Amino acid sequence: MTTSEAREQAVLEGVRKRRERVNEAIPDELPIQRPERLYEASRYLLDAGGKRLRPAVLLTAAEALADVEPLSTPYREFPTLTDGTVDMMAAAVSVEVIQSFTLIHDDIMDDDDLRRGVPAVHKEYDTETAILAGDTLYSKAFEIMLEAGAEPDAIVEALDILATTCTKICEGQSLDVTFEQRRDVTPEEYLEMVEQKTAVLYAASACLPAVLMGADEDTVDALYGYGLDIGRAFQIQDDVLDLTVPSDKLGKQRGSDLVESKQTLITVHARERGVNVEELLESVTVETVTEAEIDDAVSELESVGSISYANETARDLVMQGKNRLDVLADNEARQQLCELADYLIERGY
Amino acid sequence: MTTSEAREQAVLEGVRKRRERVNEAIPDELPIQRPERLYEASRYLLDAGGKRLRPAVLLTAAEALADVEPLSTPYREFPTLTDGTVDMMAAAVSVEVIQSFTLIHDDIMDDDDLRRGVPAVHKEYDTETAILAGDTLYSKAFEIMLEAGAEPDAIVEALDILATTCTKICEGQSLDVTFEQRRDVTPEEYLEMVEQKTAVLYAASACLPAVLMGADEDTVDALYGYGLDIGRAFQIQDDVLDLTVPSDKLGKQRGSDLVESKQTLITVHARERGVNVEELLESVTVETVTEAEIDDAVSELESVGSISYANETARDLVMQGKNRLDVLADNEARQQLCELADYLIERGY
Repeated sequence: MTTSEAREQAVLEGVRKRRERVNEAIPDELPIQRPERLYEASRYLLDAGGKRLRPAVLLTAAEALADVEPLSTPYREFPTLTDGTVDMMAAAVSVEVIQSFTLIHDDIMDDDDLRRGVPAVHKEYDTETAILAGDTLYSKAFEIMLEAGAEPDAIVEALDILATTCTKICEGQSLDVTFEQRRDVTPEEYLEMVEQKTAVLYAASACLPAVLMGADEDTVDALYGYGLDIGRAFQIQDDVLDLTVPSDKLGKQRGSDLVESKQTLITVHARERGVNVEELLESVTVETVTEAEIDDAVSELESVGSISYANETARDLVMQGKNRLDVLADNEARQQLCELADYLIERGY
Repeated sequence: MTTSEAREQAVLEGVRKRRERVNEAIPDELPIQRPERLYEASRYLLDAGGKRLRPAVLLTAAEALADVEPLSTPYREFPTLTDGTVDMMAAAVSVEVIQSFTLIHDDIMDDDDLRRGVPAVHKEYDTETAILAGDTLYSKAFEIMLEAGAEPDAIVEALDILATTCTKICEGQSLDVTFEQRRDVTPEEYLEMVEQKTAVLYAASACLPAVLMGADEDTVDALYGYGLDIGRAFQIQDDVLDLTVPSDKLGKQRGSDLVESKQTLITVHARERGVNVEELLESVTVETVTEAEIDDAVSELESVGSISYANETARDLVMQGKNRLDVLADNEARQQLCELADYLIERGY
């Protein structure tokens, strides 16, 4: 095992242990109750898996702020910086519930069949139930955050962050949809879209413990910035992986973003360098495309350096994000936040 | 003009004046911003009209609590019971925004073409945009409520009410959908569904000013109960009107609930009295049904007293709701809350 592999193993071990605790908490925060079909549909995607990366960021940031050894302190009664306690697990579940709601509605909008290796909620149930399941998770996320039990000022700020984050996710998703019709999206526009669609929820996850624990504004801002940076890097890496990871490992057809004319940092960069991106996989569908056709398209994108450009941009963002953590005490949890950031762009899928 | 007509005129005048103020506030609270298409779609139904009954209940309840003359006090700087001020208009817009979000998503689920005399949002735009517009209004409602500027404890309670209200609306809508497949819904089950789907937002509207202004728990509970009662009465009256008001006045085909096998208090009552409700308008559609066929169906429902039963139930609920207002000072605004309750079941459409 190389040093890099060993480091990735350690990061994944931390993610895995926090994921187990999050998975235990989800049924408590979101029990299957009447009407059962609605709650089963609401839980379906949450129960199907997911790495719980956003909760991992949130819980690790809390540990860095409290200056406690990772995984040593009960999340349900987590110490604030003002001699109180908050239910940090409730906050972690809340952001995962938001994530799940956006995936359910996105899958309806894109009419995607699969998610996390199982049918999308609107396929397993129906569109009506999927819309309602997403709407239920939406309000439940607020209810769950309210259960964190922080000081009223802190909880008001946390709910404000949650609400504005949801609004930005909708704005980002809307931009993403309109970009599919456009041929002149710039890298700057793309990064703005990604910030809203994906990165704000990482930003919220990173800064919410600081808000709930009563940290000062500089610390809140630094963690928010860290989350924005690594969230953008995460999405850019997702775009790279869509082109470079074998379909069986990816859980869906490799190159599907390209086939479906989704804008990515790679395609907007390539288009600016003169590549006719629309013609790369023009006459194929996700069902008919061959590996050779995707290989050719990837070669053409890389011939103008677009995949390298995406990799470098993600790397720069991760570097910038990690530097923002200098406001925190130099402890093991802060180190894990840095490793989590590295993992987001070094992960194979 | 009869006394009853004169009273209805006075109620409508109060509703109209408050509606004008609410309509002025909506563009301030929800400006069209980037991405414009998303915000235009979010505003589309709000701008198309609506009586603003829930904001009227909220603003009138605030005036009753503050013991001020109706329409005499600026809603944007409304006095609390603890020498502060709150932006009561923000709270009023927030509940109307929630109402609008639920209508947009309901119309997608029912695939309804028309709403308020204009195309439903998913028809005027598309389903993707309509889902996102509803989602945007959802979080905006929380953002707008946060702007009310009450004491932190009060705003936390207000947001909790808003979140649990949204959850209950989803649960009620889910029950409504499953009821369409069932032939054994009882009046009790129907009333529970209506409470969740419709009445909780009236309840929230009525009690939110008490929460934001710092009223005691008994007052909050009494106003919540008033809202639940009149909200259920409102929905029952809607069911009656669907059968009794001419289509041109109703803005949609009379009897359409019956044609579409929607459960109402009238049909569940009639079924218990032995009427084969499913066969009443079995072989027709909303497009093909004739006035004579609807008249025959209405006669059969009334032959077992089902429409009278619905009218009486609504009347009892309004009476019960008005009695709950005895906790308030005996003032003009409290009188208007009673008249509003009467209007909900006396209105012609």
